[in-house]
Amino acid sequence: MDPGNREERMGRIEKKKVITALLIVPPIIGGIALGPSPTLGLMVLIATFLGLREYFRLCLPRSKPIEKTIGVGLGLIFSILALYDKTSAIIPFFIFAFLLLALLFMVTSDSLGSSVSNFALTFLGIFYVGFLLSYVTLIRNMTDGKIWVLFLILTVWAGDIFALFSGVLFGRHKLYPKISPNKTVEGLIGAILGSLLIALLYSYFFLPSLNRWTVLPLGAGLGFFGQLGDFIESMIKRSAQVKDSGSLFPGHGGMLDRLDSFLFSAPFLHYFLSLWLEETL
Amino acid sequence: MDPGNREERMGRIEKKKVITALLIVPPIIGGIALGPSPTLGLMVLIATFLGLREYFRLCLPRSKPIEKTIGVGLGLIFSILALYDKTSAIIPFFIFAFLLLALLFMVTSDSLGSSVSNFALTFLGIFYVGFLLSYVTLIRNMTDGKIWVLFLILTVWAGDIFALFSGVLFGRHKLYPKISPNKTVEGLIGAILGSLLIALLYSYFFLPSLNRWTVLPLGAGLGFFGQLGDFIESMIKRSAQVKDSGSLFPGHGGMLDRLDSFLFSAPFLHYFLSLWLEETL
Repeated sequence: MDPGNREERMGRIEKKKVITALLIVPPIIGGIALGPSPTLGLMVLIATFLGLREYFRLCLPRSKPIEKTIGVGLGLIFSILALYDKTSAIIPFFIFAFLLLALLFMVTSDSLGSSVSNFALTFLGIFYVGFLLSYVTLIRNMTDGKIWVLFLILTVWAGDIFALFSGVLFGRHKLYPKISPNKTVEGLIGAILGSLLIALLYSYFFLPSLNRWTVLPLGAGLGFFGQLGDFIESMIKRSAQVKDSGSLFPGHGGMLDRLDSFLFSAPFLHYFLSLWLEETL
Repeated sequence: MDPGNREERMGRIEKKKVITALLIVPPIIGGIALGPSPTLGLMVLIATFLGLREYFRLCLPRSKPIEKTIGVGLGLIFSILALYDKTSAIIPFFIFAFLLLALLFMVTSDSLGSSVSNFALTFLGIFYVGFLLSYVTLIRNMTDGKIWVLFLILTVWAGDIFALFSGVLFGRHKLYPKISPNKTVEGLIGAILGSLLIALLYSYFFLPSLNRWTVLPLGAGLGFFGQLGDFIESMIKRSAQVKDSGSLFPGHGGMLDRLDSFLFSAPFLHYFLSLWLEETL
């Protein structure tokens, strides 16, 4: 990439991307901050539905509409279990889903050669989108859940935005061009610093009891896992040979492109809080 | 199948199968019944290791030795977690394994087209062999765990033996020849009845506090899930176009062929006992 001509490169950040963001962000933040408790659970459910649909469109052959529908349905159940805080049912439900999918692919496959790999891709998808995203709802169920969900969203978004700008402005060293030609080491560092900055600001105002030294690994971790999620989604898209997972949001690709940063950062925050809250209680 | 000539059909049950069984069964039963507590955990660990190795030999291409080794390693950790009863670490460990495998397949794949499906097959394998088999150890950790593990093994083996004999003697209706040409509806019914019979006998002698009516769904369920496990393993083998998963035991195929009946019956027994013990406590 030509290091000079920054203005031209900044211009590549499309206007429609900014406009879409400005239209989508206020209702999401407002809904979580002001809406009743199930609002977030419902948002997660809708996001999971759209994300799963995209995943199965990417990863299963066109000829498998029944398998896709059942995959979406099974994946959604994790969000519903999370909504009612039935965490003890998660593992038995995974076993049930495994059995059901095994039998389904056994019965519907003409060629057994690909049936196990399609089965494996479906099982992976309900874990990847359905289960991992349900952690957002699980965080909402914790003490001060609303504050922590907003913390997650703002910190991870800050990471995404800082990754974009620092990548465009300073990006020289490609991270792993085989998967994602535009990602740079500088973008990743920017994401971690951006998440950290917003985590420090947010916790100063809304989480005064949080130790400043706890915010450092937390903020940096959220930035890192956000970018890692983005990266893994890129691999899945690349494997399916598409650029965007869908075209739901102008300039932002599909739902999976928007969710990817939360898929690992949400579990990270959940376990960080579980361990941290246990220590402080 | 020709319904007459039963003796000839009985003769097909190979002698080496019987001899192998007579050599293997006493040390297993003796080890569990008389050995110290970690004996079973160690047996499960060895069985998981051999089962995982077979799974990856079946499902991953020959060119992936590193991925196979890491898959075996990750799958074994479930048995180790179960041995130390660290059940709260199971779900976080699944997420860690997902991340690690995603990055591994991303880095090592030449063609990204197959990397996600190989990743999915590896993730499926650690769930299928590593995680599901760890339920045997989890049962051992329960109250009267030793008695329940022996109950599981004897009941499921009875199902296998009755399935074989009633299939050979009465088998007329093929269950699903595309997957398993030798399995019959009569064999499945025989398995359920055989498991039920042994469950009733065993509980009469060793579990006198167990209500007779509780044994009915428990014994029949173990027989059913044992055969279901057998069936799903057949699908995986068929998908990989082999007859036996390995040749570890003369007349019995490989380790996976021996484990398959426990992969779903063990979780079934575990959750049955969890719910039932909670009710009776």
